This record gives sequence, structure tokens and C-alpha cells, in this order.
Amino acid sequence: MNYSSKYLEKAVEEIGQLPGIGRKTALRLALFLLRQEPERVNGLSKALTDLKEKVIYCRSCGNLSDRELCEICANPSRDHSLVCVVEDIRDVMAIENTGQFKGIYHVLGGVISPMEGIGPSDLNITGLLEKAAKGELSEIIFAMGSTMEGETTTFYLYKKLMDQNLTLSAIARGIAVGDQLEYADEITLARSITNRVPYESSLRQNS
Amino acid sequence: MNYSSKYLEKAVEEIGQLPGIGRKTALRLALFLLRQEPERVNGLSKALTDLKEKVIYCRSCGNLSDRELCEICANPSRDHSLVCVVEDIRDVMAIENTGQFKGIYHVLGGVISPMEGIGPSDLNITGLLEKAAKGELSEIIFAMGSTMEGETTTFYLYKKLMDQNLTLSAIARGIAVGDQLEYADEITLARSITNRVPYESSLRQNS
Repeated sequence: MNYSSKYLEKAVEEIGQLPGIGRKTALRLALFLLRQEPERVNGLSKALTDLKEKVIYCRSCGNLSDRELCEICANPSRDHSLVCVVEDIRDVMAIENTGQFKGIYHVLGGVISPMEGIGPSDLNITGLLEKAAKGELSEIIFAMGSTMEGETTTFYLYKKLMDQNLTLSAIARGIAVGDQLEYADEITLARSITNRVPYESSLRQNS
Repeated sequence: MNYSSKYLEKAVEEIGQLPGIGRKTALRLALFLLRQEPERVNGLSKALTDLKEKVIYCRSCGNLSDRELCEICANPSRDHSLVCVVEDIRDVMAIENTGQFKGIYHVLGGVISPMEGIGPSDLNITGLLEKAAKGELSEIIFAMGSTMEGETTTFYLYKKLMDQNLTLSAIARGIAVGDQLEYADEITLARSITNRVPYESSLRQNS
């Protein structure tokens, strides 16, 4: 492409590196931004810098946060002995939106996937095992997506935690097998939190 | 949505205001950026600020430029008496990519569209008429898209320019009626520039 401005070219190049955005879309977005007020573009630009500079991971659960402890972990009215283990930050948002869960979370930051070379050591697992070993927890709810990788990860954690004196449960599978958690509707998701079953019985249902 | 970080929320909000990007996609992009190196995110952020601050419109043709005159208008080896009139900056890029045109451009910045309330006074037309009145031009090629609005705009300019002592031509319609210029393949587009026909004969072909 012949760009008449090197700044336009640079912007198209940078925008085009975002996932799912090709060169035509990047150009369309750049030309859109050119037509906007400067404050609007500066607002977007600042929001991106702030995002990277100021957002950190919660020391306790791995959720995104503006402070060392996220709002959920820092909230004394939540049940800190009840932990919901999820793959991803988006899953925390999805469950929080149902308003049905009063415990805290543990965000793994992914799932075990030999195909993509992701093993247990690449995930945020240690903190969870430490909390369990200290006897701080009464129940752990597994809320990974019901994909092959999600199930593998759940089973791995189950094996690591089964000897501890705590209840291990899995969210009820009202959600179709193979679906991602974040796309489920809120009612189904809320029900799957409320109707959680002991992990052993969820294993029996699968086989 | 419950965002655990207000900076994340702000970023999702800003990204989600871009055309064609919904909230789910905005969140996916924000989380993608969070996983990138700071230099990468700062690069994107700076590119957007530069885009808005440093890119201006060429004083002569209305194309995007880093200087007062764009590279094409400032190039003495191009034929400044041959002007190709296009709707949009993207059309300039598309024609430049064919490498078949050695004249200069005139970017209207849109087409006449009563439906959207866009009249001739909203377009960059005055500069073109002035150039023609000064006798600086030998030929004007109309290269608007072959949509209803494009044809209307072409006809409007034809009426304004028909009494001047210059050739008025239209790019050959190898392009399907109703299609936008920017999506045409380069060979078809190059041929339509080379095989341009007098505007009067293109009118006869249409009726």
C-alpha cells in the first residue's frame, strides 16, 4: 500500500497487529480516528497507556486489579474460605455479573494444554495449593470451561487437592459441553454456581 | 459488566467506541494488550496520538499528508495538468497501487448524498473549480465509485466544468455497477484508468 503519510502508515501498522484486525479494517479505523476530535483520540491513547502501566495482577487471586489486592479479595464481607477457580479474568466478570457467588476467586490464567505447550507450571496454581495447605479454605469450586483442556486442568487440581480436608465441587453443567464460560447466559451460569455438585459425582456423569 | 480495574473498564469503553467493535471484542483486545510488552502498547498509543496531531490535509488536493503539500502534489515529475477526482483517500491509495497514473489527484472527501444531508458545499470542490478556471488543467478524470451518489457527484462536476476548455473523462467501467472502488482488483482498476472514455460517451452507455 502507498500511504501518503508515514504517520498514517505507522498507525495502520500498529492497529493491524491487534488480533482479528486486518489491514483494511486497520485503515478504516485510522481514518475514523482522523475524523474524530483530538480529545477523543487522546482519550483512547491515554486509556491504552494507563491500561498497561496501572493495571496489575492481584497478589492473592491473580485477577486484574488497580491495587495489590483486588476489590474482591480485599472485601471482608466475602467468604474467604470459599474459592471459585476459573481459567480467565473474563470468567470472574461473568460470574460476578450473576450476583450469585459470595466467595473469592482464583484465576489460573489459562488451562493445561499440551498442544500449545502450556503445563501446570505456566499457570497460577501455587497460591491456591498454599492456601489449601494452610487450612484456610473450606470449599473449592472448579469453574473451568468444559473443554478437553478445562477438564484436564480440573482433574489435575482435583488430584493435587483431594487429600486436603475440604470440599471439592464443580459448577453444574447446565452449559453445553464444548462451550466457553464467558458466552453462557447469566441465568444458566447462576444456576450452575448454585447447583454445584461434588467433583466425584461430576466425574461419574461424564463417563 | 463488573470490571475489577477501572483502567481496564476505561480502556474497554474507549476501544468499544470504535466502529464495528463491540464490548466483547473491546475486552478481548484490552486483555490482549495487557499481555503485550509495554513498548508495544506505548507504540500503539503514540501512533494514535501522532496520527491525530501530525497528519494534515494537502492544501492542493485534500489528500492526507505530513506536510502542507502531499508527496504527489509536490512531485515535479507528475503531470499537474491531469487531475483524477476521487471520493476518498483510500481511492488514491488504490489507484497509486496500480502504478498506472502519472497525474495528480483531487480528493472530494465524500459524495453528494441528499439522504445523508451531504451537499456540494460539504465537499472539497472549490479548489478543483479554481484550478480549472485558471486554465492550469488539460484533463479531468472522474473516478468516483459507480454508486447512485458517485454518479450524481460526477454529473454535478461535469455540469460545473463542461464549459471549460478541457477534456472531461470517466474511468472505464470494468468495475461492476454498485461496487466500491477500493475493493476492485489492481488489474481491473489499472485498465479502467488506461481505458478512460469521454464523459459524454460514458453517459450514453449508462442509458
